[in-house]
Amino acid sequence: MTAVGFVGLGKMGAVMAPRFLEAGHALTVWNRTAAKAEPLVACGARCAETPADAAENSDVVISILGDDASVLDVYRGDNGLLSGSVDGTLFIDMSTVQPHTSVKIAEAVKAKGADFVEAPVSGTVGPAADGKLFALMAGDAAAIARAQPYLDILCRRTIHVGAAGQGALMKLVVNLPLGVYWQALAEAVALGEAGGLERKQILETITDSSAALAVLGLKTPAILGEVGAVAFDVDSMQKDILAMLETGSGLGVPLPAASAALMSYSAASAGGMGQEDAVSIVRFLSDRLTRQKSEN
Amino acid sequence: MTAVGFVGLGKMGAVMAPRFLEAGHALTVWNRTAAKAEPLVACGARCAETPADAAENSDVVISILGDDASVLDVYRGDNGLLSGSVDGTLFIDMSTVQPHTSVKIAEAVKAKGADFVEAPVSGTVGPAADGKLFALMAGDAAAIARAQPYLDILCRRTIHVGAAGQGALMKLVVNLPLGVYWQALAEAVALGEAGGLERKQILETITDSSAALAVLGLKTPAILGEVGAVAFDVDSMQKDILAMLETGSGLGVPLPAASAALMSYSAASAGGMGQEDAVSIVRFLSDRLTRQKSEN
Amino acid sequence: MTAVGFVGLGKMGAVMAPRFLEAGHALTVWNRTAAKAEPLVACGARCAETPADAAENSDVVISILGDDASVLDVYRGDNGLLSGSVDGTLFIDMSTVQPHTSVKIAEAVKAKGADFVEAPVSGTVGPAADGKLFALMAGDAAAIARAQPYLDILCRRTIHVGAAGQGALMKLVVNLPLGVYWQALAEAVALGEAGGLERKQILETITDSSAALAVLGLKTPAILGEVGAVAFDVDSMQKDILAMLETGSGLGVPLPAASAALMSYSAASAGGMGQEDAVSIVRFLSDRLTRQKSEN
Amino acid sequence: MTAVGFVGLGKMGAVMAPRFLEAGHALTVWNRTAAKAEPLVACGARCAETPADAAENSDVVISILGDDASVLDVYRGDNGLLSGSVDGTLFIDMSTVQPHTSVKIAEAVKAKGADFVEAPVSGTVGPAADGKLFALMAGDAAAIARAQPYLDILCRRTIHVGAAGQGALMKLVVNLPLGVYWQALAEAVALGEAGGLERKQILETITDSSAALAVLGLKTPAILGEVGAVAFDVDSMQKDILAMLETGSGLGVPLPAASAALMSYSAASAGGMGQEDAVSIVRFLSDRLTRQKSEN
Repeated sequence: MTAVGFVGLGKMGAVMAPRFLEAGHALTVWNRTAAKAEPLVACGARCAETPADAAENSDVVISILGDDASVLDVYRGDNGLLSGSVDGTLFIDMSTVQPHTSVKIAEAVKAKGADFVEAPVSGTVGPAADGKLFALMAGDAAAIARAQPYLDILCRRTIHVGAAGQGALMKLVVNLPLGVYWQALAEAVALGEAGGLERKQILETITDSSAALAVLGLKTPAILGEVGAVAFDVDSMQKDILAMLETGSGLGVPLPAASAALMSYSAASAGGMGQEDAVSIVRFLSDRLTRQKSEN
Repeated sequence: MTAVGFVGLGKMGAVMAPRFLEAGHALTVWNRTAAKAEPLVACGARCAETPADAAENSDVVISILGDDASVLDVYRGDNGLLSGSVDGTLFIDMSTVQPHTSVKIAEAVKAKGADFVEAPVSGTVGPAADGKLFALMAGDAAAIARAQPYLDILCRRTIHVGAAGQGALMKLVVNLPLGVYWQALAEAVALGEAGGLERKQILETITDSSAALAVLGLKTPAILGEVGAVAFDVDSMQKDILAMLETGSGLGVPLPAASAALMSYSAASAGGMGQEDAVSIVRFLSDRLTRQKSEN
Repeated sequence: MTAVGFVGLGKMGAVMAPRFLEAGHALTVWNRTAAKAEPLVACGARCAETPADAAENSDVVISILGDDASVLDVYRGDNGLLSGSVDGTLFIDMSTVQPHTSVKIAEAVKAKGADFVEAPVSGTVGPAADGKLFALMAGDAAAIARAQPYLDILCRRTIHVGAAGQGALMKLVVNLPLGVYWQALAEAVALGEAGGLERKQILETITDSSAALAVLGLKTPAILGEVGAVAFDVDSMQKDILAMLETGSGLGVPLPAASAALMSYSAASAGGMGQEDAVSIVRFLSDRLTRQKSEN
Repeated sequence: MTAVGFVGLGKMGAVMAPRFLEAGHALTVWNRTAAKAEPLVACGARCAETPADAAENSDVVISILGDDASVLDVYRGDNGLLSGSVDGTLFIDMSTVQPHTSVKIAEAVKAKGADFVEAPVSGTVGPAADGKLFALMAGDAAAIARAQPYLDILCRRTIHVGAAGQGALMKLVVNLPLGVYWQALAEAVALGEAGGLERKQILETITDSSAALAVLGLKTPAILGEVGAVAFDVDSMQKDILAMLETGSGLGVPLPAASAALMSYSAASAGGMGQEDAVSIVRFLSDRLTRQKSEN
């Protein structure tokens, strides 16, 4: 039994944290909106007053927060995770952030004499609840070894990709072909429809071809706008592709297809679809083109 | 037993034509290079001297040729399929051509009192040999009905997508997300490598994520340059994407990601990789970037 | 006094041909629509019945036609320029065509024992009427020397850029930054307007900066849609950029900004603006974005 | 005679500040590296110890700093311009920053009871020394009126474009067609060279056509790499285009040509050309393509 701190009880964190109680660990949680901690407290967790409180009373602290600013603030801010005495503590950040943010956190953690593992994940809420995430771990080998048993509680698989910042990079790398694929599919549907083909038949034909993304059949209802569930929204994809472009620009790597995709996610977001599933750009682009043609 | 003519004994045609002998039909074949007909003649087929000869002695003629110019020439040229008396004959063209080419052939066939079905296929040599192609049929309902039993000899599935030209369009539509996906994957690999990640680990991680194309695992050896087999080469993809852009330009459909992909296929072709598998652009772009960096 | 043939009396040809009469040459003209020859006949020109008639009765033949198909047909078709006896005749083609078309014409001309100079021009109707064109000549040095005095009647300047096909290429090369500049300006205006800036002020500010195209002030009324005169229309620009992409694709040269521009010209053409001045894409893109925003 | 503070003595500031002494004002200067103030002190200026010192002893403070972080720090940091008592002071920031940065500074200035004018400029060191800049002023009408006489000392022209943030936006808007033009020119040169045309002749032909940027003739030596003077470098253009994309992404404005240009500036920067003039991408892209071809 270890004293585990868990910081960030958003959609993902809320279903991940309980797994530590189930695994028999003592759990201290913290969330900006304290109300979200209540179900966990009911199951035996303690709710910390500040991130500092959570960190000082835990041996291992796991964080999963919504954006770079939150991560920087929760780690380095007043009463932040690193504001007290945390010598020897292990911090595992599972947030999806930019590589340079993760590098900053890693440096701050090490400066306090603590261990740091970066572990963004591939997988959404369903796999998170089932302990079936895929973690892209980065950090020193010793810290990774120390983090392994805790990540095993959350993940079906973990890989070690490199030093701090490289887990965040791998997460962007994985999202790139996904974000571009929906753009390509949008172009395919728009081209087909402009030439008189039917949207459903186009999608169904692609699904039964070598051009099919493995999850395409599963996502077709969302593409057609028939279901409302959102795995990963347009705004998040837009934010991620901007991060890819910034990173690529810094490294001298041209990303023309990702740039093309950014245009559509940005336009869809400006068009009020920011909270819808990223696949919605397929519908957005084709519908817009059809509407433009009907206006002439 | 029907008198079937089969025109075009390239990689695909060579394994498709024998299926008609196996199904008990009388087979007349024609190919520009007559030597390719020899294995079929050995099995009981007759080798026609000209396309006209093949057409005049068949009730159903199936063609699968390499490019638009060949199709136009074989159908409309001197001693072409339509040069003799073909009233009532059924022509099924399975070549991958541009929509406007298929429309021209359809008109020429109908002007001779014959039936026309356009049926480009999804699937490569393996499925072709096994009768497991997926045909995208276009044409009049009556002609389609008449063509069905012959396409069933070659296909695991057929769908009717619309009028002449729309089968060719659907073929382009299906190839678009495929051609763009390899570009996106190339960008992902280049971005990751520039940031210090390993190529194999990047590919393996994407394969185990929602960003995976269904065939990604299967294509990984070709991406890495470990195998030489070519399902669909860089030059063919380049030609197809140019056709998408021309068609999209005519219909007013912007195809920015496809345009981005064209750049890479063109550069790879100019770099001497035209005959390699289309997935080779992943390797081409990443290797080029690495080489450029090492030069500085 | 030379026997000059002039073929093609479109917007450009109609104001160019009379200059040969003024220079004291004997002039035979031909145009598909014969009525366009009437003003010239009234001034002393003879109207040929066919291109062959014009060629066989001239020492020097100048052609300026609307597209590649017309050039190929007028030169190589039945009763075409090359159908009769033209040994020793000089042909100067001033049409804007694709490099490979010009190469084909050059070969056909030489096969008849005649000389060929390719001379597409920079400059529109106004300079054409004033003999102030800028010709991009390509061909053998001897043919160029022979063509010089005739081109001097039409041009303020001529340069020799290379062999047949390279004049056409230089024409595409010159149009590339022009076609892309209007796209860039469209993006600038759209970005500024989305952030609350005024369109006229944006254009005026750019005109007074190092980002100004030399002709920007002159074109501003057309950009704003205040005048109807058309120097070079959207459809022509779309056609030219497609030709750039085809040529670039064949040579392995990536043209991402030109590709981006093609999207807009294609969309504008599909939106009914094909006959408007190419600068209209600035208005088209910004207006469309404003309309989309107002719809949300 | 007014007490003028001038903060930031970089390339631009160093030639702008003396104009206030010449105009008869009392001048206090501050620069992070104090040595740069020496020539001004020799002419009668006082060197402040901190930005706060400069602000508290001036009625009007003009700042021109290198990047967003410096502006934020000099205004809002410890001993910053706003750290002391500045009620009623007029601040004019002439730095080129992102719109959101300027908005933040404006808010901070107003919260201290002071006036703020944002006035980024079009024009480089030469015009700056001659008082020939073009200022894009943004802010409240009253503050603008108050700033006018001081900006007139530096500028040949000033315009009022809107509220705080909109001057920064106009600066990005103006730079967009400039940044894209060099990309387009690079594509044109690469296309022409791949087809056998000469680089100098291509540039010279474009300069004598309607595709010429007004400054093209002037910049040709820099494009050809024959001179080393740098007006605006690759890294600055890269930074500006990233800011355009971020702003455009937030406003839902697609910027495909700007995205295409970013790829080249990023690649050139990664290739070691970050400090060279932005026009160097023309040479960079063409040389790279030539090198690649020679490798095959």
